[in-house]
Amino acid sequence: MTEENTIYVGKKDVMSYVLAVMTQFNQGIAEVHLKARGRSISCAVDTTQIVKNRFISTLQIKDIKLTTEELTSDDGRTNRVSSMDITLTKG
Amino acid sequence: MTEENTIYVGKKDVMSYVLAVMTQFNQGIAEVHLKARGRSISCAVDTTQIVKNRFISTLQIKDIKLTTEELTSDDGRTNRVSSMDITLTKG
Repeated sequence: MTEENTIYVGKKDVMSYVLAVMTQFNQGIAEVHLKARGRSISCAVDTTQIVKNRFISTLQIKDIKLTTEELTSDDGRTNRVSSMDITLTKG
Repeated sequence: MTEENTIYVGKKDVMSYVLAVMTQFNQGIAEVHLKARGRSISCAVDTTQIVKNRFISTLQIKDIKLTTEELTSDDGRTNRVSSMDITLTKG
């Protein structure tokens, strides 16, 4: 897996990520990864559902991986945060 | 699938849901479903990761389903909201 087909979901509007997914698929990329951490996870799920319901009805959710990442904050404390990786194909 | 083994994740503290999952497994239930909508989705993912990392290291995520639900609000408007169903087994 290269990083080219990975979209990191953060604090932007959900439609930005929908557009990013559509752009990747239109460039002929077969598999798009949506990655999100913490509260952004629900935004990644929204993105998937909007792409499927409004744009690509054949969209397949090939895989969903849940993991825990450790982040070190500026004061040296380690925080654990859940992360999600959704693999999408055009089906 | 009966509703007995389903935990609906909402606005409570994440540890409430961790406890609910542990209780179900300790009652001998083989498969626990965690259901969440909208922003609660990330809380369901956190619950899964805490159970796995702190309590049941053999926990398996058997399946994750993403769907869109239509909710009708009091003023008659229909809102679409993403929902997630995580199926957990003790492995």
